[in-house]
Amino acid sequence: MPSWAIGIDLGGTNIKIAVVGESEGILFEDTQPTDTAAGPDGVVRQLAFLVDALYQRAAETLDTGLFAGIGLGAPGAVDAAKGALSYPPNLPGWGQRYDLRDQLRLRLEQAHGIKAFVIIENDANAAAYGEAIFGGGNAFRDFMLVTLGTGVGGGIILDRKLYRGPFGTAGEIGFMIVDFEGTSVHAGIRGTIEGLIGKERIVEMACSPEMQAERSPRLAELCNRDFSRLSPRHLEQAAKEGDEAALRTWERVGFILGVGLANVTALMDIRKFVIGGGIAAAGELIFEPAMMQLHRSTLPSMHDGLEIVPARLGNKAGIYGAAALCFNAEKSSGLDD
Amino acid sequence: MPSWAIGIDLGGTNIKIAVVGESEGILFEDTQPTDTAAGPDGVVRQLAFLVDALYQRAAETLDTGLFAGIGLGAPGAVDAAKGALSYPPNLPGWGQRYDLRDQLRLRLEQAHGIKAFVIIENDANAAAYGEAIFGGGNAFRDFMLVTLGTGVGGGIILDRKLYRGPFGTAGEIGFMIVDFEGTSVHAGIRGTIEGLIGKERIVEMACSPEMQAERSPRLAELCNRDFSRLSPRHLEQAAKEGDEAALRTWERVGFILGVGLANVTALMDIRKFVIGGGIAAAGELIFEPAMMQLHRSTLPSMHDGLEIVPARLGNKAGIYGAAALCFNAEKSSGLDD
Repeated sequence: MPSWAIGIDLGGTNIKIAVVGESEGILFEDTQPTDTAAGPDGVVRQLAFLVDALYQRAAETLDTGLFAGIGLGAPGAVDAAKGALSYPPNLPGWGQRYDLRDQLRLRLEQAHGIKAFVIIENDANAAAYGEAIFGGGNAFRDFMLVTLGTGVGGGIILDRKLYRGPFGTAGEIGFMIVDFEGTSVHAGIRGTIEGLIGKERIVEMACSPEMQAERSPRLAELCNRDFSRLSPRHLEQAAKEGDEAALRTWERVGFILGVGLANVTALMDIRKFVIGGGIAAAGELIFEPAMMQLHRSTLPSMHDGLEIVPARLGNKAGIYGAAALCFNAEKSSGLDD
Repeated sequence: MPSWAIGIDLGGTNIKIAVVGESEGILFEDTQPTDTAAGPDGVVRQLAFLVDALYQRAAETLDTGLFAGIGLGAPGAVDAAKGALSYPPNLPGWGQRYDLRDQLRLRLEQAHGIKAFVIIENDANAAAYGEAIFGGGNAFRDFMLVTLGTGVGGGIILDRKLYRGPFGTAGEIGFMIVDFEGTSVHAGIRGTIEGLIGKERIVEMACSPEMQAERSPRLAELCNRDFSRLSPRHLEQAAKEGDEAALRTWERVGFILGVGLANVTALMDIRKFVIGGGIAAAGELIFEPAMMQLHRSTLPSMHDGLEIVPARLGNKAGIYGAAALCFNAEKSSGLDD
């Protein structure tokens, strides 16, 4: 019998939460601003309250005997085995280490009478797992999810299981260096993928002497002649209308992404890539040059099976993945180490 | 009771072979030029002959009931599960796919009456496994062996097991791109680690306008004023005597290596590196700047546990590793997939 679980995506802005059926996908969902000011204990109270509300609603129609538990994806370094979250960005006051899993479990039991299996995971990993089970990576045994947005992140699936790495921080493709002699410095590191094609950088690139977005009448129109307000969305629209500056910019973004993916192939022998995040909405504008560059930048002996596909779950990948971790708790690697 | 095995390192120049005791290490060994002209079947006959000779010698003093089998490391793409070798570089005429494991097993049985477990593995992987079991990686649960020589290669150990990757070609750190805008092109790819710090490149680097090895009296002396004959060994000696051009060259090599290692840490969360190969004889001349750069090029949240140590088995790592694969056949990942 298919079970159901509650998946949570804890972000610095919002908490996204949903009841996910193992075969049905999302059944009910809710989003609420994160009460960051309340600190970790306050956020745990808020989480428990939201879980309780959704659990009660689910219990009206679903068999509570098939409830698999609560999965939570969180930003920052997650020690999945111990259930601890360290230094989550955008969650001030959480300090070096907070026992999020046990605190949530305790609060649920003591304040709401809900005894449940709780599992926590890094949000990028949860998203990768979501795409693996419910989304764009479903056909792949091994792949990397790369999310293109304000930051560039990722999660790695090997043999259908999450690859966390020895310290739980694997998948930081945004901090891979591809241009160590270049001029871009981001978070103190020169020539990283995120420093080259993070969201802000794409707009800067468009306005660079190389691309000269300012000379495009269409882009000027889209941003009301205020190029400080130019967005990736404008570049996407202009490119789809054939604007040269916008097309060249996306081509360059795809080119650099392709170099990064080639490094993943060289090192890990991973040949399937699922691309998500807001910037990935540009689709083939990025994927086509990325694929071309991925081929050019890898040895011919590694060309078999190279593939780039879009992610399918959008900003719900994290919820899906967090819930899926409950369905497959014993199957996902390293959880019981 | 500790068992023993025969380890083979099949190279384009030599076949190295040894009887390896699980606790004693190498007991007897032999090296013989590879009869490359004889093609795959001829090399298999040669291998079987060498195995037979060493097996008979071992059987005089060792318990044949404790013979674990024959492990063979080979260059090129190895399908460890199927025992096939594809396109081994420096072994002309081997074609796209040769069933090396089964052919060797058959030949041993039919021509020599030896029925044995045979396992084949990519040579860089075998070397990594050798360092993991008998060498510099013995203290590490997870590490990457990086070999610096004519080429730059590597093998990855995760959770004390070999990580082969989905297609068996993982660990190609030499083909990781760190300078995609640079001038170096190697095997058709721009800005790879091997294209920047492969053996030949190091000598070129020393003679570049930046390093100006030609201006060093000591280096001129070491290469008899013929800078086309300058070798890494000369650079090593001069640097140890304080020669500025040589010191700057090694610093630069270490710097670039450190960038590559940082990428491994970002992507795979591996923080331990074992450095081998002929060039690694330069030791701290490379390791120190590499470690400095590894720190500078990784996020502070990934600094815990970063370590660079020398490989300990030299050019015998492959023999050790191939033999060790027999001792731990069921434990090493993916062999029975």
